[in-house]
Amino acid sequence: MLKNLAAWLDKAAELAKEKEFPADRWLELRLAPDMYPLLRQVQSACDAAKFVAARLADITPPKHEDNEKTFEEIKARIDATMEFLDSVDAAKLEGAADRKLVLPFLPEGKWVRGEDYLAEFALPNFYFHIVTAYDILRHNGVALGKRDFIGSMPIQD
Amino acid sequence: MLKNLAAWLDKAAELAKEKEFPADRWLELRLAPDMYPLLRQVQSACDAAKFVAARLADITPPKHEDNEKTFEEIKARIDATMEFLDSVDAAKLEGAADRKLVLPFLPEGKWVRGEDYLAEFALPNFYFHIVTAYDILRHNGVALGKRDFIGSMPIQD
Repeated sequence: MLKNLAAWLDKAAELAKEKEFPADRWLELRLAPDMYPLLRQVQSACDAAKFVAARLADITPPKHEDNEKTFEEIKARIDATMEFLDSVDAAKLEGAADRKLVLPFLPEGKWVRGEDYLAEFALPNFYFHIVTAYDILRHNGVALGKRDFIGSMPIQD
Repeated sequence: MLKNLAAWLDKAAELAKEKEFPADRWLELRLAPDMYPLLRQVQSACDAAKFVAARLADITPPKHEDNEKTFEEIKARIDATMEFLDSVDAAKLEGAADRKLVLPFLPEGKWVRGEDYLAEFALPNFYFHIVTAYDILRHNGVALGKRDFIGSMPIQD
């Protein structure tokens, strides 16, 4: 999904070039005045992916300062996130469904099961930011379709 | 997520009542002229949930005619979908990760593994429609927040 997101941003940059406006202006757009702009939707999607992998694998995630300002910087953030995800050893995820996770936003002494965290918080949270980024671009005229959203799945024969 | 979606629609209906416009008008709204309106986003979210459960459990899903026109009818569709999901015997999902799925939109003779279908098609597809429904409501002034989106997860102590 992060790879797809990077491709949507490339299409937005192309449209900016064609219509001769600064591509960075995309990053300011929001669907409502009290929703995050595209920049923060992308940062949040990256963080959502990073934290779920790190928590389920019980490793320390890399820090990101959320100081991106340009299209190039936000694309580098996506790349850095994908690099981290690729670096996670799948063996570390064994038993993650039953792992006790203590999350910074839970009341003291409380925890959630890895499986519940994944299905009922991390996935909806990740997709919230990914789809809203897509919807911001689509609402503002980037020529994207469902296929750009979903990407491809491995097909067998 | 479908339960959350029903609650967002209730908030939209309340706003319609408060501002004295017909609640069904929400169902026509789109984020772009070539995107589905809210009505079809909700129908598609229901179908996405129904088909993934049916395919992975290898059972025949109930048919829905997509003929809803009113707020009440679309809420009944969500209820019917949740009822179907609740009726699926979890034991039927055993081995679903490796099940060979032949999908109507694949070229003849091709198939996908259950696990690939779930992670790389069904989940993004479901969340696409769920989040876009949320974004349509949010963009048009329904007072929703991230907590309404995600709902709650089971917390332990």
